Amino acid sequence: MAGSNATPSMPESQPRMFSIRRTARIEWGDCDPAGIVFYPRYFAMFNHSTELLIEGALGVKKITLNKQHGLGGFPAVATEARFLLPTRYGDDVEIESAFTRIGRSSFAIRHKLTLDGVLAVEGNETRCWVVRDESRPGGLRAKVLPDDVVAKFNATAA
Amino acid sequence: MAGSNATPSMPESQPRMFSIRRTARIEWGDCDPAGIVFYPRYFAMFNHSTELLIEGALGVKKITLNKQHGLGGFPAVATEARFLLPTRYGDDVEIESAFTRIGRSSFAIRHKLTLDGVLAVEGNETRCWVVRDESRPGGLRAKVLPDDVVAKFNATAA
Amino acid sequence: MAGSNATPSMPESQPRMFSIRRTARIEWGDCDPAGIVFYPRYFAMFNHSTELLIEGALGVKKITLNKQHGLGGFPAVATEARFLLPTRYGDDVEIESAFTRIGRSSFAIRHKLTLDGVLAVEGNETRCWVVRDESRPGGLRAKVLPDDVVAKFNATAA
Amino acid sequence: MAGSNATPSMPESQPRMFSIRRTARIEWGDCDPAGIVFYPRYFAMFNHSTELLIEGALGVKKITLNKQHGLGGFPAVATEARFLLPTRYGDDVEIESAFTRIGRSSFAIRHKLTLDGVLAVEGNETRCWVVRDESRPGGLRAKVLPDDVVAKFNATAA
Repeated sequence: MAGSNATPSMPESQPRMFSIRRTARIEWGDCDPAGIVFYPRYFAMFNHSTELLIEGALGVKKITLNKQHGLGGFPAVATEARFLLPTRYGDDVEIESAFTRIGRSSFAIRHKLTLDGVLAVEGNETRCWVVRDESRPGGLRAKVLPDDVVAKFNATAA
Repeated sequence: MAGSNATPSMPESQPRMFSIRRTARIEWGDCDPAGIVFYPRYFAMFNHSTELLIEGALGVKKITLNKQHGLGGFPAVATEARFLLPTRYGDDVEIESAFTRIGRSSFAIRHKLTLDGVLAVEGNETRCWVVRDESRPGGLRAKVLPDDVVAKFNATAA
Repeated sequence: MAGSNATPSMPESQPRMFSIRRTARIEWGDCDPAGIVFYPRYFAMFNHSTELLIEGALGVKKITLNKQHGLGGFPAVATEARFLLPTRYGDDVEIESAFTRIGRSSFAIRHKLTLDGVLAVEGNETRCWVVRDESRPGGLRAKVLPDDVVAKFNATAA
Repeated sequence: MAGSNATPSMPESQPRMFSIRRTARIEWGDCDPAGIVFYPRYFAMFNHSTELLIEGALGVKKITLNKQHGLGGFPAVATEARFLLPTRYGDDVEIESAFTRIGRSSFAIRHKLTLDGVLAVEGNETRCWVVRDESRPGGLRAKVLPDDVVAKFNATAA
């Protein structure tokens, strides 16, 4: 289960993996009739942060990875989130995203969305690394993470 | 944590809580450039099923609950999902949704999305019951689940 | 005004082109903090109706067209809508969609979304017919509409 | 064609109204299986630009307008767009938005989305100004645009 062991805080002494921060404005269309973010939209925000995190770590756009290296993507195999405080239209939130675990062919990412420094949403997701399988049209297959990718995900800076 | 104990299969002998099934066509706009469902869209599908599940159990539309009973909603406090198989544009999927736990002021729901009878996505979510707090504009506060609501969530049929 | 000359009613004597009707429930996630549908969602509803309209006319799923006939899609080249009445969470709306013009390589579709028989939103869109261009990866090019497709779009029933 | 009379270029000599520019990254979740933006997402982008344009012109957040001035919003009454060139995941696009007409209780806005300086999508929308109608719950009614709002929409800078 994705959520079962994904959310302990890392001890201060542990070296951190690669991470990014970005700010995002909560848009009108992100919010529901209760005036708060429609929670599936948080996953869209987290997904975008994951793209930026991976691009940031590897120093290359995903579109280039797709074209040049046959990368099929890094689909989510599990995700979970806790919604601690609502956020609303017009809020400027900060999203911090970091790798939390690098496995053989999968890896985990944690997203923390804060409003005025207070944690509002925490999300954890597990992704796998897939490449195009040329043996069938549109085919994809999981692949062991390349060593240089592992090294970059583990680095503290790009 | 929502995900930690939410996914065991219920033993056959255990009385089932209220549940619904619906079919849904995967739409073009649900899918991403990899040709598979953009996973935040699954949460939108699950959210809609939750609305239908609660309306079905209570025999009344949420909009009526909002207007007549001061219900502020039943926001998600935690959610998680496992993505076992991709689904694609044009797929007709079935979504089965059931209450799995009724607490004092929160409750849990499980969604199983199947394609041709095979489990593709399983989601679990925890919701709380909130009412409008008239003491401040737009205010909401959690409330103990009313007894009749508990009874209806626990019933096997509406 | 964009819509001012786009929506003449067809005279009764004019032969109608192929059309479909479907109902849709306005979902919580379709609505904004004003409690009404976030208008980009209408275009997602219309887009789905267009897929169903074309599939209905041709008697085959788009996914099959893509695979077997090299169809690259029928992207929108222009669209417009007038929002006459708001619709809200829980509303059961009806969407009627019909071809209104078949050109050489493009065609037009009109969508009428009604609530309790009253027109709430009218949308008009122009689409073109594109096929895969095998001369470059991911390439697409516009193509003259095949005769059998034109005949089926013009038919009053599938 | 919907767009045929909606988009006259303003003569160079005409004073420009208030306008803004912003850049946006096309996200994975904005794109469809054809690898291009799912067009309803353009309207979500344009809607966000409209919020920023109005906030920019008035020098105040919409949320403040809502709370302090009883503004109910500025719902779209009509919108149209022409899709000239596709944009794709990872593209950094620029969106320029400007008032193009200020009426008595409605106003028009034009959005131009460019990629590398080339126009990809042009959208035009008409909005009206509505206030809360305290005589009925959730009520809204159109209102004549306040003079100071008109002045600010017409100004070339905030």
